[in-house]
Amino acid sequence: MIDVNSSIGVFDSGIGGLTVLRQLIRFMPDEHYIYLGDTARVPYGNKSQSIVRTYAEQFTRFLIAKNVKLIVVACNTVSSVALDTVRNIAGDIEVIGMIEHTSYAALRTTLNNKIGIIGTRATINSNAYMEGIKSIPGGENMKIISQACPLFVPIVEEGLINHQIAYLAAQEYLSNLISENVDTIVLGCTHYPLLSRVISEIVPGATLIDCGEHSSVAALRILAEKNLLRKQSASINQKPEIEFYVTDIPSIFYEQAQRFLGFPIDTPKTIDFKDLV
Amino acid sequence: MIDVNSSIGVFDSGIGGLTVLRQLIRFMPDEHYIYLGDTARVPYGNKSQSIVRTYAEQFTRFLIAKNVKLIVVACNTVSSVALDTVRNIAGDIEVIGMIEHTSYAALRTTLNNKIGIIGTRATINSNAYMEGIKSIPGGENMKIISQACPLFVPIVEEGLINHQIAYLAAQEYLSNLISENVDTIVLGCTHYPLLSRVISEIVPGATLIDCGEHSSVAALRILAEKNLLRKQSASINQKPEIEFYVTDIPSIFYEQAQRFLGFPIDTPKTIDFKDLV
Repeated sequence: MIDVNSSIGVFDSGIGGLTVLRQLIRFMPDEHYIYLGDTARVPYGNKSQSIVRTYAEQFTRFLIAKNVKLIVVACNTVSSVALDTVRNIAGDIEVIGMIEHTSYAALRTTLNNKIGIIGTRATINSNAYMEGIKSIPGGENMKIISQACPLFVPIVEEGLINHQIAYLAAQEYLSNLISENVDTIVLGCTHYPLLSRVISEIVPGATLIDCGEHSSVAALRILAEKNLLRKQSASINQKPEIEFYVTDIPSIFYEQAQRFLGFPIDTPKTIDFKDLV
Repeated sequence: MIDVNSSIGVFDSGIGGLTVLRQLIRFMPDEHYIYLGDTARVPYGNKSQSIVRTYAEQFTRFLIAKNVKLIVVACNTVSSVALDTVRNIAGDIEVIGMIEHTSYAALRTTLNNKIGIIGTRATINSNAYMEGIKSIPGGENMKIISQACPLFVPIVEEGLINHQIAYLAAQEYLSNLISENVDTIVLGCTHYPLLSRVISEIVPGATLIDCGEHSSVAALRILAEKNLLRKQSASINQKPEIEFYVTDIPSIFYEQAQRFLGFPIDTPKTIDFKDLV
C-alpha cells in the first residue's frame, strides 16, 4: 500500500539522472529515494524506440515492486519516446517525465519568444521538446532553435567542465542560438546542468532551464497535494536517504556520480538486467 | 473567506523583495500576487525594532483586508525582528519569513560544516541567521562566518552588478569567507541574488543560498498541502498577475523594479502610508 513513507523512484539510462535526483533532494530533502541507473546498457540515445520501451517497462516494474509513490523518468530519451509506456504500467502511480514541465517553464520564462533547445542528437531529432512547447496554448508562435551538442556528454563525463575544451565546444554549438538572440535555453539533457557556468558565459543574456529542477518542483506539488510528502524533519539529516541500483559499476563510477550528485555516493546494489522482467 | 483564488501577499521595505516575488512566480506562476513596497520609508535596516514592528503591523493589516491566503515577509529586517508581530496579527493565515527555510537550506547544503552569511549591517548585527541555523538540531556545530556587505545594496540599486566596482567590493567583503573555506553562502539580503554571478566568480567553490528561492519552495508546499493552490493553467499567461502597491514612486523606480523582477512592472498604485492603520 502506497503511503507517505513510500519511496520516490527515479530511473535513468545511466548516471546523468543523478542531476535530477540532486534537484529532487533539494526540494524534498526528507524523502526516501530509489535510484536506478542502467549503466550496463547506457546510452539509450541511439537505440530503437522499441528497445527503449522494453527497458523502460522493466525499470517501471522494478520500481512498482518497490512500492514507490511516484516515478520520475530522469532520462530525456525515455521521456521523449516511452513516457506513455511507463504511465500505462504505473497505473495510479504518478509519473513525471522531463519534457512537460520543462516546456512550460521555458514558455513562461521567455520574454522575446525565442527559445533555444539543446540536447543529445537523439533528443533533438525526436523533436520532443519542440512539440512539447508547441502543444501548449501560447507556444505555437514561439521561435525555437534546436541544437544537438554531441560533445557535451563526453566532456561532462570526463570532468572537463571548466576546461578550455568546454568553452570551445559551447562556442561552436551555441553560435546559432546567439545569432538568433534566444533569451531562454532548455538544457534538454541531464548532463548539461554541469555546464551551466560555461553556457552562461558564452550566452550571458539567456536564462537556462534545468529539466531536473522544473520536474522536481512538479513532483513536490503533486505529492503535497496528495498529502504524500513526509513530515519535514526538525533536525538535519545531512545525508539524504537513497537506495542505489545499477546494472554495472564502471571504474570511474564513483568519481562521476559524486560530480553529478554533489556529494559522495554509497556503494550501489548491482542488479543483473537479465533478471529484470 | 480565504479560498484557492485568494491572493498571495508579499511585503518588503522597498523593492528588494521583488527578487522574492520573482522566485514565488517561478514556482507558482498561476497565482495572483499583491506586492507592497514601503518605498517612502525605506530602508528599515537602521531603524528601531519598535518602528519596524509598527510598519510590519500596518502592512499585515493591509494584506489581511485584501483577504490573502498567505503572507510572505520578503524583507530580511522585518523577518529578523518582527516576524512574531506579523504572525500574531495574521492568525490563521500562514506567514513565511526569510530566515527559517533559508537556514534549513544552508544546513542541508554544506558538506564541510562551514557556512558564510552575508547581509546588510542590520541583518548581520541581528544575528538572526546565525541563531536560525544554531537553533536547528544539527546546526549547533556549524562554523558560521558572518560578513556585512554595506556597499552591495547601493551597487545593485545603481545597476553596477557587472561593473569592476562589484568585483572589487566582493573581493573585499568575501576574503574572510574564502580564507575560512566556507562551502555555502547565505545571501541574506533580497538584493544579493543580482550579484550571484560576481559572488560565484570570487568564491567559485561555494553554493549560494537564495532566501527568496527557499522561502518560495516552502510557500508552494504549504499551499499545496492545504489545497490552496490555483489549478495550473493549460495555456501560458506570460504576464503574471500582480497588483503593486508602493508608498512612493522614485524617479528610477521602473528601471530598478524591472532589474529585480526580470520583466517590466505595471504602474503601481500609490498608497499614503499615513492612511495605513
